[in-house]
Amino acid sequence: MARMLKGRSARLGMPPGSLVYVGERSPRRPRITVMDYDASRFDETVLAEPRECAGRRDTAAVTWINVDALAYPGTVEEIGTALGFHPLMQEDILNSDQRTKTEDHGEHVFVALKMLSWPDARETFEIEQLSLVLGQRYVISFQERAGDFFDPLRDRIRQNAGRIRRLGPDYLAYCLLDVTIDHYFIVLERLGERIEAVEDAVMTRPRVETLHDIHALKRQLLLMRKSVWPAREMIGSLRNRHTPLVSPAVQPFLRDLQDHVEQVIEGVATYQALLTDTLATYLSSQSNRTNTIMKVLAVFSAVFMPLTFVTGVFGMNFRRVPLIDWEWGFVATVGSMALLGALLAAFFIQKRWL
Amino acid sequence: MARMLKGRSARLGMPPGSLVYVGERSPRRPRITVMDYDASRFDETVLAEPRECAGRRDTAAVTWINVDALAYPGTVEEIGTALGFHPLMQEDILNSDQRTKTEDHGEHVFVALKMLSWPDARETFEIEQLSLVLGQRYVISFQERAGDFFDPLRDRIRQNAGRIRRLGPDYLAYCLLDVTIDHYFIVLERLGERIEAVEDAVMTRPRVETLHDIHALKRQLLLMRKSVWPAREMIGSLRNRHTPLVSPAVQPFLRDLQDHVEQVIEGVATYQALLTDTLATYLSSQSNRTNTIMKVLAVFSAVFMPLTFVTGVFGMNFRRVPLIDWEWGFVATVGSMALLGALLAAFFIQKRWL
Amino acid sequence: MARMLKGRSARLGMPPGSLVYVGERSPRRPRITVMDYDASRFDETVLAEPRECAGRRDTAAVTWINVDALAYPGTVEEIGTALGFHPLMQEDILNSDQRTKTEDHGEHVFVALKMLSWPDARETFEIEQLSLVLGQRYVISFQERAGDFFDPLRDRIRQNAGRIRRLGPDYLAYCLLDVTIDHYFIVLERLGERIEAVEDAVMTRPRVETLHDIHALKRQLLLMRKSVWPAREMIGSLRNRHTPLVSPAVQPFLRDLQDHVEQVIEGVATYQALLTDTLATYLSSQSNRTNTIMKVLAVFSAVFMPLTFVTGVFGMNFRRVPLIDWEWGFVATVGSMALLGALLAAFFIQKRWL
Amino acid sequence: MARMLKGRSARLGMPPGSLVYVGERSPRRPRITVMDYDASRFDETVLAEPRECAGRRDTAAVTWINVDALAYPGTVEEIGTALGFHPLMQEDILNSDQRTKTEDHGEHVFVALKMLSWPDARETFEIEQLSLVLGQRYVISFQERAGDFFDPLRDRIRQNAGRIRRLGPDYLAYCLLDVTIDHYFIVLERLGERIEAVEDAVMTRPRVETLHDIHALKRQLLLMRKSVWPAREMIGSLRNRHTPLVSPAVQPFLRDLQDHVEQVIEGVATYQALLTDTLATYLSSQSNRTNTIMKVLAVFSAVFMPLTFVTGVFGMNFRRVPLIDWEWGFVATVGSMALLGALLAAFFIQKRWL
Amino acid sequence: MARMLKGRSARLGMPPGSLVYVGERSPRRPRITVMDYDASRFDETVLAEPRECAGRRDTAAVTWINVDALAYPGTVEEIGTALGFHPLMQEDILNSDQRTKTEDHGEHVFVALKMLSWPDARETFEIEQLSLVLGQRYVISFQERAGDFFDPLRDRIRQNAGRIRRLGPDYLAYCLLDVTIDHYFIVLERLGERIEAVEDAVMTRPRVETLHDIHALKRQLLLMRKSVWPAREMIGSLRNRHTPLVSPAVQPFLRDLQDHVEQVIEGVATYQALLTDTLATYLSSQSNRTNTIMKVLAVFSAVFMPLTFVTGVFGMNFRRVPLIDWEWGFVATVGSMALLGALLAAFFIQKRWL
Repeated sequence: MARMLKGRSARLGMPPGSLVYVGERSPRRPRITVMDYDASRFDETVLAEPRECAGRRDTAAVTWINVDALAYPGTVEEIGTALGFHPLMQEDILNSDQRTKTEDHGEHVFVALKMLSWPDARETFEIEQLSLVLGQRYVISFQERAGDFFDPLRDRIRQNAGRIRRLGPDYLAYCLLDVTIDHYFIVLERLGERIEAVEDAVMTRPRVETLHDIHALKRQLLLMRKSVWPAREMIGSLRNRHTPLVSPAVQPFLRDLQDHVEQVIEGVATYQALLTDTLATYLSSQSNRTNTIMKVLAVFSAVFMPLTFVTGVFGMNFRRVPLIDWEWGFVATVGSMALLGALLAAFFIQKRWL
Repeated sequence: MARMLKGRSARLGMPPGSLVYVGERSPRRPRITVMDYDASRFDETVLAEPRECAGRRDTAAVTWINVDALAYPGTVEEIGTALGFHPLMQEDILNSDQRTKTEDHGEHVFVALKMLSWPDARETFEIEQLSLVLGQRYVISFQERAGDFFDPLRDRIRQNAGRIRRLGPDYLAYCLLDVTIDHYFIVLERLGERIEAVEDAVMTRPRVETLHDIHALKRQLLLMRKSVWPAREMIGSLRNRHTPLVSPAVQPFLRDLQDHVEQVIEGVATYQALLTDTLATYLSSQSNRTNTIMKVLAVFSAVFMPLTFVTGVFGMNFRRVPLIDWEWGFVATVGSMALLGALLAAFFIQKRWL
Repeated sequence: MARMLKGRSARLGMPPGSLVYVGERSPRRPRITVMDYDASRFDETVLAEPRECAGRRDTAAVTWINVDALAYPGTVEEIGTALGFHPLMQEDILNSDQRTKTEDHGEHVFVALKMLSWPDARETFEIEQLSLVLGQRYVISFQERAGDFFDPLRDRIRQNAGRIRRLGPDYLAYCLLDVTIDHYFIVLERLGERIEAVEDAVMTRPRVETLHDIHALKRQLLLMRKSVWPAREMIGSLRNRHTPLVSPAVQPFLRDLQDHVEQVIEGVATYQALLTDTLATYLSSQSNRTNTIMKVLAVFSAVFMPLTFVTGVFGMNFRRVPLIDWEWGFVATVGSMALLGALLAAFFIQKRWL
Repeated sequence: MARMLKGRSARLGMPPGSLVYVGERSPRRPRITVMDYDASRFDETVLAEPRECAGRRDTAAVTWINVDALAYPGTVEEIGTALGFHPLMQEDILNSDQRTKTEDHGEHVFVALKMLSWPDARETFEIEQLSLVLGQRYVISFQERAGDFFDPLRDRIRQNAGRIRRLGPDYLAYCLLDVTIDHYFIVLERLGERIEAVEDAVMTRPRVETLHDIHALKRQLLLMRKSVWPAREMIGSLRNRHTPLVSPAVQPFLRDLQDHVEQVIEGVATYQALLTDTLATYLSSQSNRTNTIMKVLAVFSAVFMPLTFVTGVFGMNFRRVPLIDWEWGFVATVGSMALLGALLAAFFIQKRWL
Repeated sequence: MARMLKGRSARLGMPPGSLVYVGERSPRRPRITVMDYDASRFDETVLAEPRECAGRRDTAAVTWINVDALAYPGTVEEIGTALGFHPLMQEDILNSDQRTKTEDHGEHVFVALKMLSWPDARETFEIEQLSLVLGQRYVISFQERAGDFFDPLRDRIRQNAGRIRRLGPDYLAYCLLDVTIDHYFIVLERLGERIEAVEDAVMTRPRVETLHDIHALKRQLLLMRKSVWPAREMIGSLRNRHTPLVSPAVQPFLRDLQDHVEQVIEGVATYQALLTDTLATYLSSQSNRTNTIMKVLAVFSAVFMPLTFVTGVFGMNFRRVPLIDWEWGFVATVGSMALLGALLAAFFIQKRWL
């Protein structure tokens, strides 16, 4: 959670628009892949130099430039300068804490959002920054790290599957957003499984670890909510901007996307409410257990304290103690004690303490 | 609750509009029933093939085509292709997690909402997806499973009861929504009965099971709220769209429907608040019980510990112990102890611990 | 609370506008009283037949028809048919769970709201449905049960007190609403008295019954809020409709009424917050008591356990035990024990446990 | 808190606009002071009769009529009749539970709000009703009780300090509101001091009284919030009404006033959140203390129970008990017991229970 | 927290616009520094007298006048009079409790906000009032105390770094806001570190101090939220005012700034939610510990009470006690007791109490 703001202090006092990467440094050079396509044609290359981007932007009906490993210094600045991006936009691309948003810069639209993924071996999901620039004939996507997030989409372009090759860069941008938001569902589904496991644990065998699990899940939902919540507004402002860069044909797809984001947000809210209830139930069951333990303690004390007192009475060393010299004294006393004990036990059983 | 998102991951990476049924597969072929009617005429048939839908759409004043068992593969696509539905709309029909919404597609209006039903033998209610397509002269309804939900409505059409045969497809669509929302009341009523039972239990004989019941009811209310909440907006947007497909005569009925949905939502909110209070009361009564148990324990300890100490004193094997050789020593000691015990007991009774 | 939705299931599957009374059946025939008046004239009769309403509607400047005991079957339908009410409106009048609302039907305005009353002998307030129809020259009021709610208003008409005889049916409708909302204050005041009593009890002598009282009051406030909350919107929409049926002279009175409803809503919210605080205080004081009891228990145990152990030591039957044969052994031992006990007690007093 | 609604029931069934004073009756006749002033002239008199108000209203550039002790019967009605106030407005002036609001009556503007004051000897602040009527050339202020609230303002008028004598009645009305709202800060400051005291108490020496103090402060904040909250809207509607009675020169002052009210509301909200936290902390520290007490109890029991058991073993009267006849038996046994006790104590120290 | 309102009472009854410094008095005279610059020229001086400000205002393309140490009496009034500020604006500058806001005075725009800083040695952050006046060719900044907050910005102006020297006073004002809001991130980051430490402590070794830390952090977040929250609206109204003083070139920077404020607010909200969860977890773990302690206590009591009772039985001084004279009586009895003890222990181990 602390990651939320790490590295911000590094920027302190620098001029606005200073290109400081806020995140972990990467030793790896970014890989810049270019896909040029239209309905009939398809071409895929890897660029050696960031500045080559400028030349590739308008070569085909649609050009998709993907840049990863932002942490390598200088790359974003080179590309930004080559393509004429506003300095603040370059800063936003580099800032891995950037808030999800849409900005209309006239000749291109800038979109920033979070990619959530859950690598199999990990305890929790990971958050990565995705920046998109949608122009007249191109889409440029910046990923914080290298990954295979968009591979199914690449395959669809390569194999000319679906309608992607027939539509423009706005549809491509939509597809990128769609894949990203589909991953929100995956993460939510995984969290849902864990929440269900925790719920079962609370009902059947509550332990201290359960408490820690609830706490960890609440943190993850908080973090997820923080990532997903602004996406609603982001897509909304993309739809309402009436920028000519988004064609009417893509509008229904964006509406659909907004539905999906709503659904994720509602899911997160429902899970949060569910966990809050689960914690309350856990606490109540703790208090139930306390009562059970207390009852055992109280019953033992209430039964044996009077009996032990009686043995103490007849253990006193007075010269003249009644019954002591009577032949059946011991038996009568022990019998009375057994009776007293049984009565006390019966009383507690009747009060449902046992 | 985990069902909320099950199967979503199956769609990952597929092109938007891919027709993947998100839900359990069904081995049963869908049953497609068609009712053609106007004020004077009525005709009811079962279609053998999905694609026959297209021909039946405009044969009478009002045509109601009902399709169930969506899980059978291919049916929705066939119908959708025959009737010219947008691919995203076909996807929405198949998606059993679809959010409640209205979409105006110009020549038809698409409505998705949740059907809630509570089969008698079940522990909780069931959620099913209902999709409606309202056109100029037809209504097509898609139910996730087969069922007798709309049988009373069919009888009203068959028997020409009420005004249904005199009005158009918009009124039919309203009737379908009305039946669906009337079932929300049934489910809410049942939850209300259970909540009342739990409240009584908390007041009179709180047990661990009560706690589990409260938790289960809170889950059900959460789930219900999630299903019902968007229906308010859905009907509102149906009213405000000013689509020519909804005639002014049907507007008052939709207003009435919106009132009903409001009432369900308020009912759910009230029950949620009530359950939260009930849980707090349960916790407090637990803490009361703890206090009662503690008091018993404390009183027994406070009374018998001093007395047992006294017996211990006179049980020590010193050669010279006062009173021990006195003839009335035992009686005096035991009498004193009885007095001491009575005083302690009186003290605790006066402090209301007993 | 369960009453909230009782009987709803009876309507299931019936055509919208079906006239089913949702509430308890009444064996009593409704009493239909008619008051005709203007500034100079006044006439009061009881109608034998519901259908006579139609003829009485326009006989004077203002006609007030009051109908009670709705549960008697058929009456509302007869009146509704005679006066030409929309079927949905008739259904709303009969529905005792009807949400508070205003509906403008052009030639008349329909208003539904809740009457709250608190009969002296009862444990809680009662809710009754009030429906008003305001026309050009008449007001028709439907009360669920017979009662003396509006008697002071009738007296004012009879005695020509205040301005009521000089103004039109819109002012009469306002007066009916005003009396109804004044009763909200009465109910709130009574709840306030009980809340104060509960607060005192929590501060001075918290008991299990206090907990039940808090719970019951929270339920009552929830129910009251549910009844009163929509009245704000209802009066607001009455003011903003700009229907010619409400004259400008009555507008300031409606504004005043809206102020009153606001005040009731704020009062309910304040009491809810206060009860939540009171419950928290109750819980804290419970926990305080637990601590007090625990301390007594701990102190007794801590003082007497070591002492009893010492007596046990000298009660062991070893042949050679130090001090045992010394003449002052017993006195010295008991004295030491008294000293030890005093020291332990002093320790706990210093720690404020006693 | 109960005062909130006291006396409301007295009005039940009376015609709207009935002049019943809702509050405690006063035996004192109201004092009606009049200040006439403009930049050069100043005159101050006390009126003998309420109806003289009418003649004084327009005698100078600005006339300020202040009326206190509203509980004296008849006065408000006399003044209202003399000045032609709407009956509902007269009722509002008399109603000491009146909600804070602004009403534009065309030729005058009516403002109702709460005066909060905290007399030094009191346990809590007091609430009083202030009503202002702002006309073309006059301001009339109605105070519920007599008091020195506005004395500094009177001095400023008398001494021609600041700009007050140069500006019109709208500025005077602003000054009255400003003094009133400045007192909100005083009350908030005092509450702040008490909250801080309570916070310290919770941190250092939590006691039962602390709990009662928290509860009392929460009540006071609730009451304050209820009084202050509507003032935001009241000033807002005064600014936005664009009544010619408020000149543009006074608008910046009203904006400033609205800032102050916002600040008070935020302060109250912050204190409420702080007290909620403090209560949670108190509860946690209670639970900490319970744990501490429990540990002492558990440690004493765990150490002395086994030891006492051992003494019991050797106190049994069997003929043949090992060690008993050995010369060092007692020493060895007591030594072993000391060792066992030390081991147990060490174990609990290591577990941090001691 | 009490500081929130300190000194407010000093203003009571004074005319609005009275220049009373609300805060601690300063013995230090304010330092007034002036920076005149444009793209080519740069000049920096310190003014001896406040009234010299007037002459310096329009001497260059951009003039930045910075005034600190407001607590020195008279300075703000002198400057305000020299530059013709509205008296209420002068009062706002002096009021260290001033709410964050923007006011458009036509020829200049007034901005008030909070500076947060966290000196290294301190336990918590400090809040200082910053007031900005943006005119046609100048910016005047008023800081409550002297400090090095803006030194990096001064260096950028001196060294002509970035675009600051090429742009106007609106960009300078933006830079001042940007530095201030960047400090919000620093403070939030520090709070985040402490929250993480507290979370760890709750998970691994909860202690009483942890509770106090949680409480202190909650207070700090409340205070931060109170300072930061209105900044969102402040920047929004700066953007939407369409004042000619803010040029279109600076608008994107303000949009960026608003994003930053949103991010801080979301961060604070997330941390608040996290701390609330952490407190709940702390409480739950307390209750877990109580249970653990109780179990130890209950097990010791349950095992040793019956055993001690048995020893008591054989310690009674009856003449005829079975087994007592049997040679193996002791061994058999002690053996049976060991067996009983073992059985009880096994029972509790099986119930997971040990």
